[in-house]
Amino acid sequence: MDLIQVIERKKLGYALTAEEIACFVQAAADPDTPDYQLAALLMAIRLNGMDTVETAELTLAMARSGDMLAPRLDGIPVDKHSTGGVGDTTTLVLVPLVAACGGLVLKMSGRGLGHTGGTIDKMESIHGMRVELSENEVIDIVRRVGCCVAGQSGELAPADKRLYALRDVTSTVDSIPLIASSIMSKKLAGGAQGIVLDIKTGGGALMQTLEQSIALGRTMVDIGWQAGRRVAAMVTGMEEPLGSHVGNALEVKEAIDVLAGRTAGPLLDVSLMLGAQMLILGGQAGNEADASALLEQALRSGAGLHKLAEMIEAQGGDGWVTQDVSLLPQASHLIPVEAGIDGYLHHVDTQRVGLIAQRLGAGRLRKEDRIDPAVGLVMHKRIGQPVKKGEVLAVIHANHPARGEVAAKALLQALDIGEGAVPKAKLLYALINKDTTEVT
Amino acid sequence: MDLIQVIERKKLGYALTAEEIACFVQAAADPDTPDYQLAALLMAIRLNGMDTVETAELTLAMARSGDMLAPRLDGIPVDKHSTGGVGDTTTLVLVPLVAACGGLVLKMSGRGLGHTGGTIDKMESIHGMRVELSENEVIDIVRRVGCCVAGQSGELAPADKRLYALRDVTSTVDSIPLIASSIMSKKLAGGAQGIVLDIKTGGGALMQTLEQSIALGRTMVDIGWQAGRRVAAMVTGMEEPLGSHVGNALEVKEAIDVLAGRTAGPLLDVSLMLGAQMLILGGQAGNEADASALLEQALRSGAGLHKLAEMIEAQGGDGWVTQDVSLLPQASHLIPVEAGIDGYLHHVDTQRVGLIAQRLGAGRLRKEDRIDPAVGLVMHKRIGQPVKKGEVLAVIHANHPARGEVAAKALLQALDIGEGAVPKAKLLYALINKDTTEVT
Repeated sequence: MDLIQVIERKKLGYALTAEEIACFVQAAADPDTPDYQLAALLMAIRLNGMDTVETAELTLAMARSGDMLAPRLDGIPVDKHSTGGVGDTTTLVLVPLVAACGGLVLKMSGRGLGHTGGTIDKMESIHGMRVELSENEVIDIVRRVGCCVAGQSGELAPADKRLYALRDVTSTVDSIPLIASSIMSKKLAGGAQGIVLDIKTGGGALMQTLEQSIALGRTMVDIGWQAGRRVAAMVTGMEEPLGSHVGNALEVKEAIDVLAGRTAGPLLDVSLMLGAQMLILGGQAGNEADASALLEQALRSGAGLHKLAEMIEAQGGDGWVTQDVSLLPQASHLIPVEAGIDGYLHHVDTQRVGLIAQRLGAGRLRKEDRIDPAVGLVMHKRIGQPVKKGEVLAVIHANHPARGEVAAKALLQALDIGEGAVPKAKLLYALINKDTTEVT
Repeated sequence: MDLIQVIERKKLGYALTAEEIACFVQAAADPDTPDYQLAALLMAIRLNGMDTVETAELTLAMARSGDMLAPRLDGIPVDKHSTGGVGDTTTLVLVPLVAACGGLVLKMSGRGLGHTGGTIDKMESIHGMRVELSENEVIDIVRRVGCCVAGQSGELAPADKRLYALRDVTSTVDSIPLIASSIMSKKLAGGAQGIVLDIKTGGGALMQTLEQSIALGRTMVDIGWQAGRRVAAMVTGMEEPLGSHVGNALEVKEAIDVLAGRTAGPLLDVSLMLGAQMLILGGQAGNEADASALLEQALRSGAGLHKLAEMIEAQGGDGWVTQDVSLLPQASHLIPVEAGIDGYLHHVDTQRVGLIAQRLGAGRLRKEDRIDPAVGLVMHKRIGQPVKKGEVLAVIHANHPARGEVAAKALLQALDIGEGAVPKAKLLYALINKDTTEVT
C-alpha cells in the first residue's frame, strides 16, 4: 500500500481502514517519506475528519511506533496531562499532594514551545534539579518517593513527533482526531495505567468552543479505556490565568505558596479537582468526597509540601527551596501595571498575557531558544474584582528594563476594566468519565 | 502576510483575497517555501474549493509569476489546448488547416508525462524537426508560415510548474480551480489572444463526470474573457481512442493521412469542430458554417497538407514526409490482436489502452525517460462495429517481441465484445462560449 492511496481515500471522505492507518503511521516514522505527502494527509484529516474507530486505531499505531514503557510498580501509576494554559502549574501542586496520599505519580512532561516552558522547564529553575532521567531512574524515584516529574525518556511515539511538528506549520493543529491521537499515543506509550486529562476551554485554549473541548475529552477518554487504561477528563476554564503567577520560577514559587497554605484560589481548586480524579483512578479513594478529604488533609498537614521537597531532593535539586522561595531566581526589575480608571476587571485577553510572558523571555519562540527562569508577571486582580484608579493590577518581572516597559504597556491593553460588577470566571465546565459526561 | 495565515483562512472555508492569493503564488515561486505548506494549502483548496473570483485571481497571479509573451503579429494569434486523450492528435490536423485558412496559430506545447508524448514529442519523430525554439524564432515562423508548434520558451508561469508537480504526488489533481488556473495561467502567459479548449470527458479523462467537465470548461472560459482573451471550450468524448493510431510516429502518420484525404472519422470530425472555433476567435470566419466551409475547402484542396509541410520545413524537418509516410520511424514487430468471439465492440478501456502504449515505450513513466517514436498500436474497430471471431481488432507496433506479446494480451482484455448492436461513441458533449453553455 502506498501513502498516496491513503491520501486519496481520506480526500474522498472515506473512513480509513486499520491497514491504511498503519501505512500512514509507518510513513510518518520513515524519514524517506516526503513531508508534503504527510501535510496533504493531515489537511485532509483536518477537513474530512476521522470517526472514533479511526482515531483509536491511529492512537494505538502511533503509540506502537516507538518504545512502550511498562514499569513494574506496586500499584497503579497515574499521569496527568493538560492541553496547556497560562499560569497553569497544577502539576507542581497536585503531584506531591497525590503522592502524599499514597498515589504513584509517573509524570512525563515535555519542554514547552509557548508562553512559558513546560513543567520540566519550570522545575529547572530550582538549583541542581535534574529532569533528564533514564527510565530506570524515574521508576526508582517513583518507588522511593511516590512521584517523579521527568522529561520523556526513550523514543515515545516517534511518528507523533514528526506529525506534531508538521501540524504546527501547516495549520492543522485544530483537529480533534489529531490532537486526541497525539496526546493519547504519548500517554499510552508512557506507561501510566491511570490518566487524568485537563482540557482547557475558552480564551487562548486549543479548542475554541466548549462543545469542541467536551468532544475532545470524550474522544480521549474513550480511546484510553479501549486501550485498557483508566482515564478521566475535566474541561476547565481559561478566561484568565489560572494562578496569579505566569513565568517559570514564579510558578514554582506559587506552587510552593499553595502547598504551604499561604495562598489559595483557582490554582488550588483545580489542582484538588484533578488530584481527586487521580486518587480515584489510582485506587486510593472510592469517590470524590473521600479523595478530596485525603487531599485536604495532605495539604493542611504539610505532607504535600514535604513530598515536593523529597521529590526535588531525589532529582538532585535543593529541597530547601520549599522553605525559602527566595532561593529561586529573581528578576532585576519589577514594574507595576496600574489601573487608569475605576471599575471592575471584566475581561482578560489570556492569550495575550501568555505572549507577553513569552516575549519577556519566559517561553521559547523557537525550539533552540533559552528560557529566562526569573521573568514573567504576577496578576493582582481576578475577573470580577473591583479596581480603583492607580491601583496595581499586575507586576511585570523583567531582566531588561526596556522589555519590561513594553510588557507593562501591552499588559494594560490585555485587561478590560468596565463599569458594574461581573461574576468571577467559571472553573469547571465538564467532567468526563468512562460512562458519563457531566456538564456543570 | 505569511503563507500559514493563508492556509488557515482556506482551511476555515473563507474565500481568499487578492492579497492572500498573491502571497500564495509568490510563496510557490520562492524555492525557500517548504513544500509541506504548499501541499497543505493545495489540499485545503481541493476540499474547500475556490469561487470564480478567487480562481481568476489565482490564474492571473500565476501567469504574472514569470514571462508574459506579447508577440507583435498582424492578426489575432490563436492557441488550442486539450486536457489530454488517447490517440488524440487533433493539433497536427487542425493547426495547418487553420493556418491554411488565414489563421495565425501560436501553439505552445509541453512534453508529455503519460501514455504518449506531447505534441512536440510526436513532431520529433519527423527527421530533423526542431521544437525547442526561441521566442523570436517562433514569432518569425508564425509570420512567414502562419503556424508554429513549439515547446514552451522562456519561464512561463513558474509558480504553476512547482504546484503542478506537487499536486501529482499529494492527490490534489482533481480540483477545478487548480486545473483551470494551471492550464489558463500558461495559456495567458503564452501570448495567444484566442484560445480553444478541448476538455475530454469519460474513461480515463481528467474529469470523471460530464457535469465536472462542463464546470471546468465554464470556469476556464470565464477566466479567459475576464483576462481580455477570446476563449471557447468544447467537451468531447474519450470512450475510445479518438484516432485509430496511438503512438508518436503513428499519430503523425494518421494526421498526414487525414490531411491527405485518405482517412476520415472522429479524429477529423473533432479537429474540424475545434478548428472552426479557432477561425471564429481569430476573426477569419463569422460563424460555424462559414468556418467549416473554409476548413473543408483547405482539406479538399490539399492546402492543409501543404501548410503542414511548410511548417515542418520552417522548423528544420523533412517536409517530404507529408508525401511519403514511410519516412517515419517504423517498429520492427507488428502483432495482430484477434477477436475471440463474434459480436459487437461494446466498450474500450481507454485508460488501459493508453497505459499499454506507454509500456511499449510510446510514453514516459518518468520525466527523464526516452520515448521510442516507432511503437504504439493501431485500432481496427470502433465502438458499435460488428466483429467476427478471428478478425483483427488492433495491431501492436513493438520493437521488443516479448513486450509486444504482453501488450497484445493486455489489449485484448481492454476491449469488450458483446452480443447485440450498440450505438457508436458520442463525440461532442458541450460547447461553451462567452455567454452560452450548449449541452448537446
